[in-house]
Amino acid sequence: MFVSCIAPRIVGVISFSIILTYETYKSVVVRSWPLGIVYRLMQLIIISYFVGYVFLYERAYQVADTATESSVITKVKGFGRLNNAVMDVADYIYPPQGEGVFSIITKIIKTDNQFQGRCSEVTHLEQFTHVFSQCIITGACNTSAGYCEIEGWCPAEDDKVDIKPMPEFVNFTIYIKNTIRFPRFNVSRENFPSTKSIKNCTYDKNTDPFCPIFRVGYILDETQQNVTLLGGEIGINIEWRCNLDHNVNSCVPTYSFSKLDAPFQNASLSKGYNFRFAKYYKTEDGTDYRCLHKAFAVRFDVMVTGIARKFSLIPTVINVIAAVTSVGMGTVLCDLILLHCSKGAQYYKEKKFEEVSEEQIHESLTLKPGSQLSIRRGNSSCNDSGAVSLSTNC
Amino acid sequence: MFVSCIAPRIVGVISFSIILTYETYKSVVVRSWPLGIVYRLMQLIIISYFVGYVFLYERAYQVADTATESSVITKVKGFGRLNNAVMDVADYIYPPQGEGVFSIITKIIKTDNQFQGRCSEVTHLEQFTHVFSQCIITGACNTSAGYCEIEGWCPAEDDKVDIKPMPEFVNFTIYIKNTIRFPRFNVSRENFPSTKSIKNCTYDKNTDPFCPIFRVGYILDETQQNVTLLGGEIGINIEWRCNLDHNVNSCVPTYSFSKLDAPFQNASLSKGYNFRFAKYYKTEDGTDYRCLHKAFAVRFDVMVTGIARKFSLIPTVINVIAAVTSVGMGTVLCDLILLHCSKGAQYYKEKKFEEVSEEQIHESLTLKPGSQLSIRRGNSSCNDSGAVSLSTNC
Amino acid sequence: MFVSCIAPRIVGVISFSIILTYETYKSVVVRSWPLGIVYRLMQLIIISYFVGYVFLYERAYQVADTATESSVITKVKGFGRLNNAVMDVADYIYPPQGEGVFSIITKIIKTDNQFQGRCSEVTHLEQFTHVFSQCIITGACNTSAGYCEIEGWCPAEDDKVDIKPMPEFVNFTIYIKNTIRFPRFNVSRENFPSTKSIKNCTYDKNTDPFCPIFRVGYILDETQQNVTLLGGEIGINIEWRCNLDHNVNSCVPTYSFSKLDAPFQNASLSKGYNFRFAKYYKTEDGTDYRCLHKAFAVRFDVMVTGIARKFSLIPTVINVIAAVTSVGMGTVLCDLILLHCSKGAQYYKEKKFEEVSEEQIHESLTLKPGSQLSIRRGNSSCNDSGAVSLSTNC
Repeated sequence: MFVSCIAPRIVGVISFSIILTYETYKSVVVRSWPLGIVYRLMQLIIISYFVGYVFLYERAYQVADTATESSVITKVKGFGRLNNAVMDVADYIYPPQGEGVFSIITKIIKTDNQFQGRCSEVTHLEQFTHVFSQCIITGACNTSAGYCEIEGWCPAEDDKVDIKPMPEFVNFTIYIKNTIRFPRFNVSRENFPSTKSIKNCTYDKNTDPFCPIFRVGYILDETQQNVTLLGGEIGINIEWRCNLDHNVNSCVPTYSFSKLDAPFQNASLSKGYNFRFAKYYKTEDGTDYRCLHKAFAVRFDVMVTGIARKFSLIPTVINVIAAVTSVGMGTVLCDLILLHCSKGAQYYKEKKFEEVSEEQIHESLTLKPGSQLSIRRGNSSCNDSGAVSLSTNC
Repeated sequence: MFVSCIAPRIVGVISFSIILTYETYKSVVVRSWPLGIVYRLMQLIIISYFVGYVFLYERAYQVADTATESSVITKVKGFGRLNNAVMDVADYIYPPQGEGVFSIITKIIKTDNQFQGRCSEVTHLEQFTHVFSQCIITGACNTSAGYCEIEGWCPAEDDKVDIKPMPEFVNFTIYIKNTIRFPRFNVSRENFPSTKSIKNCTYDKNTDPFCPIFRVGYILDETQQNVTLLGGEIGINIEWRCNLDHNVNSCVPTYSFSKLDAPFQNASLSKGYNFRFAKYYKTEDGTDYRCLHKAFAVRFDVMVTGIARKFSLIPTVINVIAAVTSVGMGTVLCDLILLHCSKGAQYYKEKKFEEVSEEQIHESLTLKPGSQLSIRRGNSSCNDSGAVSLSTNC
Repeated sequence: MFVSCIAPRIVGVISFSIILTYETYKSVVVRSWPLGIVYRLMQLIIISYFVGYVFLYERAYQVADTATESSVITKVKGFGRLNNAVMDVADYIYPPQGEGVFSIITKIIKTDNQFQGRCSEVTHLEQFTHVFSQCIITGACNTSAGYCEIEGWCPAEDDKVDIKPMPEFVNFTIYIKNTIRFPRFNVSRENFPSTKSIKNCTYDKNTDPFCPIFRVGYILDETQQNVTLLGGEIGINIEWRCNLDHNVNSCVPTYSFSKLDAPFQNASLSKGYNFRFAKYYKTEDGTDYRCLHKAFAVRFDVMVTGIARKFSLIPTVINVIAAVTSVGMGTVLCDLILLHCSKGAQYYKEKKFEEVSEEQIHESLTLKPGSQLSIRRGNSSCNDSGAVSLSTNC
């Protein structure tokens, strides 16, 4: 019933009177300077907030793209001395392919000529109580000496050896090739200053902030950590913060460095960073043997984050509307003052509110039969043509 | 012309009358309890929706940061028996560096002593019709027996061998070091309960949900899949869901496990997960030979997702404005009822709408010369000083 | 004082009169067809903008999830000839585990039988002036010939050798298994058409756009780059753009290919893509020697981006409110025209604005003592019961 009452009227409103009338709010203007000051001050605060904070500071007129596509290729250079041998990239980089996450080995504890078999290993007694056995123990134990016979690659590793880490490590250089793409705006950028030769440059945050070649020692100094001895994990953050409303050439990366395992500094377990790998050999008669490497390394993690911003209509419109609507909200506070706390509150009320009560309607319906008739006519005309404006006799 | 008419008036409005007047909407108050109930009910629904759903449930007063920086280091422990040899981490982890994506080999089919040369391989006839040759065939074929001579590393691999996967695999433990940073809020967290020793803990979602050491068997049980035989891919999801309005120590990870290749279960091609690699040797006279490994492995993929939320003014203000504006929208429905479906509709219309028609304006202009004059004066004064308020004689 | 004045009134307003009265704006309806046309036209523009652009084009009624979890497994097939040997996957893929980022080696410069020791290397003089020494030089130099003795793996690599890249490379196939999950909507998808056998298919953007097996030559043709000689980096973009309001089966990936190092084409440093790795051997007497490989490779980077959209109440409500509010903003422009630029401006002003001045209030307060009393009563009644409606005598 409600729908059948409303629907034709909506159609009527749209079809006929829309081009004929203009509807605006009736306003009450109060000439009172204290109230005016409060009112305008509130509007000023609201406008300042939107202009200053929302639009200028938070740039709410732009959309952001953080879902970036990025590729990183790294290339390390440098020679170092370890265990009386000269190490080059093929020896100390894991993995060798120049990925964004790579480890530079600074120290290796080698256990050479390991064959499958049985041997004794220093085994701490508490390990026996551990719920998961961490090595295969044959059962022949000399508990007083703390030795147990184990089965596996023999001789067992003895990682208590004191080995000096590679001192030349700090002079290695890392060349990082990074490209980034913001798919939302279809913009690609590379970390490579097109105007400049990078052949002999070295990164320095003050003098050469766009050079993509980094000295390891510089990175370690920046993170203020000594990771050479036990290994560690260093983050190389490449941050792209681009305002694409400006020239795209001003979209350049900034580099920063962080020690990623810093929160683990106080952990009793696993200080530093190391991993084990083996090189496999065969004897003349075809028996396998291996050389186990416990490598202490510094892992570099090139992490690329990007955010690009560009003007967009939708957030702009929504925020402008929010701003304009908010300006009108100054009236809420002022109305409270005006209608409750001002001297002439009662007078204002009479001016602002026009009252209509049920009794008045009752009166108007019974006393003015013409009006009553018009309603009947209105109802029928709605069902007939639907062409009734908001302010006609319908 | 339009601009020249409007511009000085806007200036005038701003410069003079702004501190003097306060403008508010004139309202019509209808004392009718059925309409009042509908009106207040609608306002209640709208307010409930915003308070309950938008603010409390969806937390629209916060901004979220999902663009996280995260680093993962893994360390596997455990010994296993495969092909009559004891395997340790250096033997079964690929790659060895402790990355977030790593494979634990559970079964290896070895083809030892492969030399470059020619040999025969079981070749199915349909392979000949395949558009891309998958091996280099010399052309000497025994089609009746299904054998063809191939060129390459000989003897060819025979992967039909039945080999038992490493049974100790389920007792291996994986230690995961994970740090996460929310750059928007500059908050870093690690998956390491600072208040607790993790030396001997093992993850259990009920009894020890924050321990970062996982038993492989537990993970397999959680994913309810048997991947040991043919290999598979397991996702270890670390989810950070942080409300930074609370204490930052309550920002802890939750772990979950999923079988990533589950959608491929029914695929005819490539069940499970395996890959081939080789170990290279040299004979005494310098000839290269290799041992080809077809490794069936379980790949673990540590995936870190994070979302941090924090109170922010902009979404709060926008949503509060949306809420307040929406409350006012109750009038749209009520006006429809009031003006079209109520008994006193005609009377209400007279009260709500004040009509101004072209004829009235014409009359007012011809009958009241003072008013006409005032408009002329108004126009000129706009051009003169611009100091005209909205409600003065301009 | 202000709070103590307002607070009880607000309570009063809520507790008593809320169900009794309905408040609506009093409107002025102007029957003028030029103004009506402008007014309706503006409303039409605003509605068209919201319906057409905001809702249909930008789909502002949906929320998006771009923080996807994705896993990629790759498998390469094919045999090639390089340096008079047949290469298979175990020989040319780095790393071997089938990761989303992998390199196919197309050319290898081998430096065999390297032992630790001293030898001479072609050394360019400018290298001596470089701030970081890139190799360990013993000091014995023959500067006229440009040779210097170095210490390390000898003989030194001579990468000026001309070697033909593997021609069969273009016929290799890459099989990509990709699963994606949108955690916000908890939807998982795989790049595997469930309705179709993929056993013998090959990707072609026109004839077979959903086949996950790619011929390398096809990818190179698409990127229109010759990377076989010096190596390079190819991006395989898998893009998931899903409208989850539709059938989930229509959520399928699209593939595209790009040459990632294209921006570096003109760089003087490091054209193409290559890396060094070594295979290690032992002589009979246990001396280590190695075979250094300088591998030119094409690196494939499978990059998965995903965005899923689904209807959500909050953005819909906010945008509908923005739309409805915006429609009302048509009055701002029309009021400017009406009140300043129309013939009957003065008359309209009288109708739109009802003025209340301080003098009138003063008059009303001095001349009508009943009104003044009512205010005093109102104040006291506020403190007494708080049960005062907006339009009663308070």
